[in-house]
Parts: sequence; C-alpha cells; structure tokens
Amino acid sequence: MRATVLYAAGDVRIEEVPDPVLHEPTDAIVRVVRSCICGSDLWPYRHMKPDPHGRRMGHEFIGVVTETGADVGRPAVGDVVVAPFMYCDNTCEFCREGLHTSCRRGGGWGIGGVDGGQGEAVRAPLAEGTLVTLPVGADDPLIPSLLTLSDVFCTGHHAAVCARVRAGSAVAVVGDGAVGLCGVLAARRLGAEQIVLLGHHKERTDLGREFGATDVVTERGGEAVARVRELTGGDGVHSVLECVGLVDAFETSLAITRPGGAVARVGVPQYEQVPLGRAVFMANITVSGGVAPARAYIEELLPDVLEGRLEPGRVFDRTVDLDGVPGGYAAMNERRALKVMIVP
Amino acid sequence: MRATVLYAAGDVRIEEVPDPVLHEPTDAIVRVVRSCICGSDLWPYRHMKPDPHGRRMGHEFIGVVTETGADVGRPAVGDVVVAPFMYCDNTCEFCREGLHTSCRRGGGWGIGGVDGGQGEAVRAPLAEGTLVTLPVGADDPLIPSLLTLSDVFCTGHHAAVCARVRAGSAVAVVGDGAVGLCGVLAARRLGAEQIVLLGHHKERTDLGREFGATDVVTERGGEAVARVRELTGGDGVHSVLECVGLVDAFETSLAITRPGGAVARVGVPQYEQVPLGRAVFMANITVSGGVAPARAYIEELLPDVLEGRLEPGRVFDRTVDLDGVPGGYAAMNERRALKVMIVP
Repeated sequence: MRATVLYAAGDVRIEEVPDPVLHEPTDAIVRVVRSCICGSDLWPYRHMKPDPHGRRMGHEFIGVVTETGADVGRPAVGDVVVAPFMYCDNTCEFCREGLHTSCRRGGGWGIGGVDGGQGEAVRAPLAEGTLVTLPVGADDPLIPSLLTLSDVFCTGHHAAVCARVRAGSAVAVVGDGAVGLCGVLAARRLGAEQIVLLGHHKERTDLGREFGATDVVTERGGEAVARVRELTGGDGVHSVLECVGLVDAFETSLAITRPGGAVARVGVPQYEQVPLGRAVFMANITVSGGVAPARAYIEELLPDVLEGRLEPGRVFDRTVDLDGVPGGYAAMNERRALKVMIVP
Repeated sequence: MRATVLYAAGDVRIEEVPDPVLHEPTDAIVRVVRSCICGSDLWPYRHMKPDPHGRRMGHEFIGVVTETGADVGRPAVGDVVVAPFMYCDNTCEFCREGLHTSCRRGGGWGIGGVDGGQGEAVRAPLAEGTLVTLPVGADDPLIPSLLTLSDVFCTGHHAAVCARVRAGSAVAVVGDGAVGLCGVLAARRLGAEQIVLLGHHKERTDLGREFGATDVVTERGGEAVARVRELTGGDGVHSVLECVGLVDAFETSLAITRPGGAVARVGVPQYEQVPLGRAVFMANITVSGGVAPARAYIEELLPDVLEGRLEPGRVFDRTVDLDGVPGGYAAMNERRALKVMIVP
C-alpha cells in the first residue's frame, strides 16, 4: 500500500510500504477513507533531523474495517469507524478516568511499527477499545466533521473542559488554527457568554466568528493583552484556551486570565520553561490541559455533529489525494491552507 | 504601642509605633491577644534589603475588638475575632467567588499604613468583611488552633482543595513546615486514603504522622521521587501539595504526580521560571493553587477546630512575648522552632 513517510524537515514522501496484517488478536485492519494533516505534524515537518528510516505520518482517520482479530467483538468488518489520535484499550484505570492518552497499553499512530493514518490502510491495535463505529456511510457528507473527532475538535473541547468553561464564562482562545477554531466551537457548546479569539488571519477569524467568537483580537503581545482586558472590564477572562504551543502564547494566556481563572494548553509545547512566578501565584491562576484524550470525548460530541448542530469539518479548506500530501504539508506550513483533508 | 518592624535581613526590632486609630468608618481597632510568625516572614527576614522606614510585620492574629467605626455592624466591641492574613470586604465579586485574596478593596497587613499583626494592636480595615467572631474567650485553650485559621491551616486546606484531594485520593505533601503539616491535616479531613509526607525533620514528620500522614519520605531529589513512586505502585499520587516555594520542590512535585493529577502550590514562589514542557503536557498534569483566600475557608474549618476534632495548633512549638520576637525569627530561620506563637 502507499503511505506518507517523513525523512527530514521538509522531506515528506508518499511511498510503498507493507500492507498491514493482523499481529495481535486485538488488532483490526482499517481501509482509510479519509485522513488529514495536523498542525502538530508541522513541528517535525519544520524541524526533524534526517532519519534514513523515516517516520510514518498521520494520526487522524476515518476508515472501513476490513479484517478483525479473534478477540475483536466490535467493530465488525464493514463498519465505518473513527480513530482517536492515540490508540488505547479503553479498560485500564486511566481510560476509566477518561485519560485514554495515558492508557497502560496504548500508544501513538506511526510509532513502534504501528501504521500512520496518512496512508491507504492501518493496522489498528486494541481495536475494540480504540475505534468508534459511526452510524453513517463512508461517503456521507458529514464525514469531514466526523473526522475532526479524531483529534482537532476533541482537542479544542479538551481545552475548554480543562479551562473550566461553563455557562456564562468569559473565554479567550489564543490561536486561530484549526484547534483554536474548534476551541471556539467547544466553548460555545459549553455555554460561554463571551468568546474572544486572538488571531491574525482574517479568513480564519471570520470562521471563528461563525463558530461563536464574540470578539476578535488581532493585536499581538502587550497590545493584545490590553485589548482583551478592555473587552472584559479590566479583569481578563475566566478561561483561556492556549492552542498554539509557543511560550509567547502561553505568556499572553496568563496575562489575560482573570484572578482565579484557568489556562488550558493543548498546543504541543515547543518550550521547556514557563514564567510561573509570584504574579500568577498571587492571582491563583491554574494551568491545566495537555494532550487531549480524544477517545474520552467522541461519544459525547458525536450527537451534535451527527445532527448537524456543529460543523467542525468547516476547518478543512483543502482536499488532496495521497500524491497531493507533500503539497498539503507545504500549504499548511505556509498558512495557505488551514487544514488539509486527505482522500487516499 | 509596641510592634514588630523589619529593617533589613536579620534586623527585626520591637519598637514604639503610633497607637492605631480609626481612619475609615469601616475600620475596627483590635487588641491583639495572640499572633505568630509565618514561614513567609522568613523570606524578607533572610533577603530584605535595608529600608530606613522599616516594614511592619505579622499577618496572623486573634484579638479583642476595642473600637469600631460607624459603619461596622459586626463584630462588636468585646468580640474575640480571628483575622485572615489579608483583609477584604467579603462582598465584591472576587470575594463572592471565594477568592478574597483578590478582593477589589482588600490588601495585606503591614502594607500601606496598615498595622502588622505582630504588635499590641491593629487597625483592621473593612472590619465587617475581614474579621470573624469566635465563640470563645480570649484565653480559651483552643486559641492556638483557632489562630491557625488566620493562615497556616487555611493555606494547607487551600492546597488540598486546589490539588483536588477527595475521598480515596493518594496525596503527597512536599515540605514538613507548618503549612505542610496543616496540608496533611486538611488532606485527611477531605478523605485522602494515602498521604505521603516529604520532609527531613523527624520531630516534624512525627507530628505529620499524628496529623494523618501514612508514609514519610526523607529522601531528596530523584531518590524521593523513586520512593514516592514505589509507595504508589509506580504511578505517583493524584494530588501534590507543594508547601515550600522553591523550584526544586516544584520539580519534585511534578515528578511524583500521577497522569491526570494536580500539583497545588501554596509556598510563596522564590522562582520565576518552572519546567512545564512536554512530559507534563503528555501527562495532563494540572498546576494550581496560589495565595490562599483564608477568609473563604474560616467558617468551613471552624467547627472541626472548635469541637476538637482537629488540632492544627500543635504546629506551635514555642511561645514568646514581644521582646522574644527577634529570637523567635532566629529560631524559625535556623529550624530550631517549627512555628512561633506571640503573646504580645
């Protein structure tokens, strides 16, 4: 089969790789019908040191089950399934606590002999725990929105949950990438009254407004902080969804948080140290979030997508086939595309 | 009257200062019957640059109201009251949210013309919001434990609340100072099943065991981390109460937190930057806490103290009069005393 392999920064290739076969009785084989490129894929795309073995890419996909191991009770062959961006058994104590990203037996797609999602097919470990069957056909118009349940919508939702967004909250979303926009959608879904989106790209912040942002702040740094304070009566917001992963965004997030409020970070940190000194301490600001346990949220978010109340799939603004994947990476990296969908 | 004034690191003096008088109709004058020295007083005691004006010290006291402003409905003259370590109106929106330390009109004792608690009397601003009347006499044997509601017991409780301690939790308390020991007591009160106390001073950790610690870890750094993991089946604890304020303690706290768990810091940070990179992100660890809104907790904690179920006053292991205050600072600084009570 063909799949996406990254060999070094900027060097992404579509290559012939072995067809997946069942290794464990808990595996399933899934033919990928839709995948996509993640903002987090851009970090290795920008910075990866050359690796002659390459790295299989992709961790978001919807597919059709073509084969199941002996221990897989469900999903069944023929089911259309969505995969969260890490696989998991859905039974260990971390999974039972809703922290599937810390599953005792789980792991990441494309790592340790597991296929990536940006290819024609995938061996899905722990298929019964990992894969969620969707009550739609593989060519349903809802597929793009359902695909966001793999990662980006669940990640935005995780940020909103960890930042304690509730009915009436004043919320800021830092970052107008696909996760940030899904964060806006998630905050609105949880009843936020004010949603301030911080971003610089008009077509993105316009979509953010359609998703529920009540205000857009295009300033940067100290000016952005001043503007958010102005919009919130001087105090800042209860909840900040930090959807970037850079230390500047983190600092801005802290500076616009109301005393007693929370910053939830879901952008993969591109830093080690953060300023968390006396000012943050005196304001009792909580820092929360982390890698999103998408599997924990899929069933909860599914009805709003299936019934068309929310359309997170609008973050996809470009569709490519496998041959178009390298161009898709380049387009996202150069911000010519917000999020690229792949039809293998 | 006589009061405690700090002029520079190590230079603490008992001096004649003006008797307090009512400035505002919301003030009360309180004759101090019991005060104490806080671990946080030791930071300026160790590091304050010389200041010819000096700094009035003390933010924990119980006293008797001797005079009230025209707008003070309660407490009444003659009431025995406990003061939280910051004054507040108890009516603004931050106070209503339980974040009295961010009160719009509040502030700190000893700052901006307000008396400190380590003296014979105090002008208490916003007396009606700040002071809590106690149903005991000024010489009641419960006074030491009631005095801890000013700060140290409420601070330990704040750490436990912010670290999300609940029935069945595995908890670690980093630091065997008075706040740490009160954190043990607060964690037990909230139903923690396992309470691991990290500390190096046997007489303190012995009291910690009496307060409810199930395990004591005397190792430091990486060895302490390994020991806590060993005590918790390899995973670490759900909740860490960081009661020190040094970056090493913060790093240890992160390293012993279970994925999905929380570190609450209540030791005043003596650092600006902390390591909060990818490992913490992947484990979804929350960092919470801050300066404790003691006023929010006094009524809640009061019954357990009044009815003798909890004895946080056992943290006091030395009592001095005003002349003994400089010696009390030295004793705490040299760890010859855990916490010093003052009878002015």
